[in-house]
Amino acid sequence: MVSPIDVAKRLVLGRPFRSDRLGETLLPKRLALPIFASDPLSSVAYATQEILLILTLGGLTYLHFTPLVAGGVVVLLAVVALSYRQVVQAYPSGGGSYEVVAENLGALPGLVVAAALLVDYVMTVAVSVSAGVDNIISAIPELNPYRVAVNLAFIVFLTAMNLRGVRESGRAFAIPTYGFILGIFALIAVGLGQTLLGHTPVAESAHYEIHAEQVGLSTAGLAFLLLRAFSSGCTALTGAEAISNGVPAFRKPKARNAARTMTAMGVIAIAMFAGVTALAMITKTRVVENACDLIGFSGDCHTDAQKTVIAQISAAVFGGHSVAFYYLMVTTALILILAANTAYNGFPLLNSILAQRRYMPRQLHTRGDRLAFSNGIILLAVVAGTLIYAFHGSTTRLIQLYILGVFTSFTLCQTGMVRHWNRELLRAEGGAERLRVHRARLINAFGACFTGVVLVVVMITKFTHGAYLVVIAIPVLVALMWSIHRHYSSVRTELAIDPGEIETLPGRVHALVLVSGWHKATQQAVRFARATRPDTLTAVTVNVDDDDTRALARDWDKYHVGIPLKVIESPYREITRPVLEEIKRQRKSRPRDVVSVFIPEYVVGRWWENLLHNQSSLRLKARLLFEPQVMVTSVPWQLYSSHFRDPMRFEHSPGEIRRGITGPGDAA
Amino acid sequence: MVSPIDVAKRLVLGRPFRSDRLGETLLPKRLALPIFASDPLSSVAYATQEILLILTLGGLTYLHFTPLVAGGVVVLLAVVALSYRQVVQAYPSGGGSYEVVAENLGALPGLVVAAALLVDYVMTVAVSVSAGVDNIISAIPELNPYRVAVNLAFIVFLTAMNLRGVRESGRAFAIPTYGFILGIFALIAVGLGQTLLGHTPVAESAHYEIHAEQVGLSTAGLAFLLLRAFSSGCTALTGAEAISNGVPAFRKPKARNAARTMTAMGVIAIAMFAGVTALAMITKTRVVENACDLIGFSGDCHTDAQKTVIAQISAAVFGGHSVAFYYLMVTTALILILAANTAYNGFPLLNSILAQRRYMPRQLHTRGDRLAFSNGIILLAVVAGTLIYAFHGSTTRLIQLYILGVFTSFTLCQTGMVRHWNRELLRAEGGAERLRVHRARLINAFGACFTGVVLVVVMITKFTHGAYLVVIAIPVLVALMWSIHRHYSSVRTELAIDPGEIETLPGRVHALVLVSGWHKATQQAVRFARATRPDTLTAVTVNVDDDDTRALARDWDKYHVGIPLKVIESPYREITRPVLEEIKRQRKSRPRDVVSVFIPEYVVGRWWENLLHNQSSLRLKARLLFEPQVMVTSVPWQLYSSHFRDPMRFEHSPGEIRRGITGPGDAA
Repeated sequence: MVSPIDVAKRLVLGRPFRSDRLGETLLPKRLALPIFASDPLSSVAYATQEILLILTLGGLTYLHFTPLVAGGVVVLLAVVALSYRQVVQAYPSGGGSYEVVAENLGALPGLVVAAALLVDYVMTVAVSVSAGVDNIISAIPELNPYRVAVNLAFIVFLTAMNLRGVRESGRAFAIPTYGFILGIFALIAVGLGQTLLGHTPVAESAHYEIHAEQVGLSTAGLAFLLLRAFSSGCTALTGAEAISNGVPAFRKPKARNAARTMTAMGVIAIAMFAGVTALAMITKTRVVENACDLIGFSGDCHTDAQKTVIAQISAAVFGGHSVAFYYLMVTTALILILAANTAYNGFPLLNSILAQRRYMPRQLHTRGDRLAFSNGIILLAVVAGTLIYAFHGSTTRLIQLYILGVFTSFTLCQTGMVRHWNRELLRAEGGAERLRVHRARLINAFGACFTGVVLVVVMITKFTHGAYLVVIAIPVLVALMWSIHRHYSSVRTELAIDPGEIETLPGRVHALVLVSGWHKATQQAVRFARATRPDTLTAVTVNVDDDDTRALARDWDKYHVGIPLKVIESPYREITRPVLEEIKRQRKSRPRDVVSVFIPEYVVGRWWENLLHNQSSLRLKARLLFEPQVMVTSVPWQLYSSHFRDPMRFEHSPGEIRRGITGPGDAA
Repeated sequence: MVSPIDVAKRLVLGRPFRSDRLGETLLPKRLALPIFASDPLSSVAYATQEILLILTLGGLTYLHFTPLVAGGVVVLLAVVALSYRQVVQAYPSGGGSYEVVAENLGALPGLVVAAALLVDYVMTVAVSVSAGVDNIISAIPELNPYRVAVNLAFIVFLTAMNLRGVRESGRAFAIPTYGFILGIFALIAVGLGQTLLGHTPVAESAHYEIHAEQVGLSTAGLAFLLLRAFSSGCTALTGAEAISNGVPAFRKPKARNAARTMTAMGVIAIAMFAGVTALAMITKTRVVENACDLIGFSGDCHTDAQKTVIAQISAAVFGGHSVAFYYLMVTTALILILAANTAYNGFPLLNSILAQRRYMPRQLHTRGDRLAFSNGIILLAVVAGTLIYAFHGSTTRLIQLYILGVFTSFTLCQTGMVRHWNRELLRAEGGAERLRVHRARLINAFGACFTGVVLVVVMITKFTHGAYLVVIAIPVLVALMWSIHRHYSSVRTELAIDPGEIETLPGRVHALVLVSGWHKATQQAVRFARATRPDTLTAVTVNVDDDDTRALARDWDKYHVGIPLKVIESPYREITRPVLEEIKRQRKSRPRDVVSVFIPEYVVGRWWENLLHNQSSLRLKARLLFEPQVMVTSVPWQLYSSHFRDPMRFEHSPGEIRRGITGPGDAA
């Protein structure tokens, strides 16, 4: 624990949790809601804005279609929330959409969903963080030039938080989420109250004219514009399935608690989205894709940012410098930043499930130091950070990549659920039970159709705006997972033991000890080799320098080593190749026997000491692994300096001492 | 031999030499002269120029001091050549100055010389290549914008040549060196002939006026300017000791052949330097540090390069577009580029000597594929290339870093030789012998004084012009070598066997086989472990996933493995730590016994397959090396894909087959 990397890791990660404390990290509903529902709830902060952005492409004229579009989104939200209530109850293991699809539709559709979900998790992080930063910049416009840096800083922060473990995150995230819900409801209540009392709040952008990009639309053109706006509004649904992937983190009864949390989430999300959209209409808030299309925009439309819809409404209702305005901005930013946390919970869990089924590298399956799946968390952070960097932290541009994957998994998941209920129906007995299954199937069938239609709409309207990247990414991910699986399967087949096979024990064991000089490390290697009582035992040296070899031979006699020393000539002054040839020769004459190669190694403590030692033995070891019927034994000799490095020597965890476990620092 | 790196290596390096052909690579004098003397001879190409550059700082006035300054250099050259004749005879082993000083003055002065020589070798490469490129640009001015790139290309070329081995270099270098000598003597003969016949050749720059940077010098100022010019002229001496470092590469009688080559080199160098300087005076060649100080310079003085002195003289004597002019430019450029080869011969040899004495990492001692010392060659090329890049390929700026190191080693070497002769004098018998030693001592004493004075002059006049970098580099190198030596010594002490010590054989051997599942790789590991007949044999698995562990336990019974399976709980879902704790526990109860850990490993062929396997076993192996009384045995299982990788499988050398050696490709 003395290396600076370890110290840094400890500072960032805190002390590791013990596995037997895993039970303690299970979440009560009041903590599960903020952790898993922060994503769908937070999308209220940008869903309305995305609808307005599209509608204003046609100028102010089409803004009165806003309620229509928003109404569609609300219905969809209700359908999806209801559908996923069924999923969490039917599949409480946390596989979520992936498990539903893999089990009901087959492995390949399962992988498509898995790929879509992996993309979504990444996009959740990227979009939520960038939208959060949008709101911070709405409150503090001076930060606009540092947009990307602020985004990346938040990703680093979130990553560190999550590497510390789920429970600690829950506490940190409950307050801002509830604070945000409270703030939005207060905003809606006060805003609607003002309107009813005749003091209609007015947004700062209410008097802006808009330079329309699309004018004189045909009916078909208008329909397309409305569908595009609807697609954008569907961003309100993103993250709705997070709860279904997180069921195992709930307290018991897991499924029921998760379903209730899902219902609560749906109701709150619909109320907030409807309220905010209504206020945006009332306050006449204007936002456009390109600030230069705003006639009357104060500031340089090329460098200054527009304020977010939430910020404009909040300023109109509460006043632009009121405490309430800043409170709402802070909680909005916080819930958005923390919404990304949903993905930090779901992404490593999904990877771990995929790794267990051998669609992902096995090391994503093992948990890290901190009960969270560190490898997956770091992967997620890197990809999301790269996307934010590539798209300069633009929420609108990132959202184009977001919605497609979401609806891919929605549609496949609902379709899978219909199959599930079909099977259940065969098993169901009694009228009440059959009625329940029938109703459930109806809900999921409706959900499948609805989300399927939306998927087509999203694909058509968003393809050229960035969604094509997702259309490329999903098949690539599927192919990757498929080939990883094929690799593991072929290895498994190759390694499988034929029960009928007669076990042939190896013949004799021929031990070789590689020596370069006669000293304690060599002496120990010879001793250890002798202790394994091989059938033959030979010391082997490669003659690179005649003087050195002669000195070795002298010592060999002087100290009565007692085993033969074989000198291998090295025509190329190499080490690896002559030793290898010698071993190959031995093996050829006795193919059933085993060659056991003992290599004395120095263990040093400082990195630069490794530059001065063991170079040739490392190369030789790597090469010997390619020889069948050869085993390679490292006989380490710990030089004094190695005591400075031992990475676990001083590592203690509190639980360890309490449970009476001997820490590794006590031995040696 | 299928990896692209290997193919590239083979294309660059050619087939490896066999060690028993080392004798064939010894050099006859006619090849040794061009190889080792190309450095001192080639410095004729720039030494005169460097004198003129300094003198013209004071305008045209001081140019008539040129013969004085050049005369000093000639005397010095004679003294140094005579001195080194003695060195090659007294120390024919190739250690050169380093050996002389280390043996006569002690280890620390020896290291100072070694450091100075290492710096010099690097500077030889950098200066010679950049000066060669200067002459190429004098002939083809269009290349000026690509100066640095051309420099680096030549370094890459030289490095590749040298990695192929000494002999092939010798052939390639003999022709240009003799061509250069012939060309310069022809130039001198024709030029002096023309002058005597009254057709005095006139340089293109003869009519240029010079904007003097230093005007109205005091006597002290003049003296300093002359000393500075002399210091610069001393660059003619660089490389004079190359022969003394290369004696072992000569044919027998090595010492006498080397001494004769040294004499020939001295005579030729003096004649050429004197001739070129005379012609520079006759043709009124002007060169200045900053081309903008030349009044009348045709072209843009900021971007265009001045022609070198050799180019100007040659154009004046032969005509600027004559075949003879281009011939001389080509041979000058070639000998300069190839002079760098002297360093390619000396640098790895010195490193190898230092490595043998444990002042450098041991791997610099082992020879590479090609009888040359590849590691040292590559190191040299990288450092020289970096310097050229940093100084934009400016010969004049690089030369400032060159001379100091040269005279440090000259002075110390001559001082060492005086000591040597003092000792010889005590042993010498007979008048003739004593007279010979007395005369030798006199020569070296004179050389030591002379070069010592020059060292002081160089230090004073060049310090601020870049030599301070060398003043920093030498102590750093000395400290580095000293600490490497101290490290090796302390390791040697730590490892030394006390002859009085009673050999305690290890107690019992406890074998542990790490298993994660029951398959062929595990089965083989258990078989091999059993074949070593340990006192106890246990299979150990870490419970990371309950299902997997249960499946393993089932297989264990089903296949009647017959050794106990111990399940270690892993509270942190780690692999390394629980295994380590288990081993520590075992060792604690039986400290004299040895624990032998068998790790089944998959050997895969493609790099990405490694990402999917062996991650935890690698970490565990690295960590186990820190445990005393533990040996770690890798039991490799070669998966089918491993056959695609085996780096030596298809590697054959021609000599191998002829000598009936079984190539590694034949087994398996």
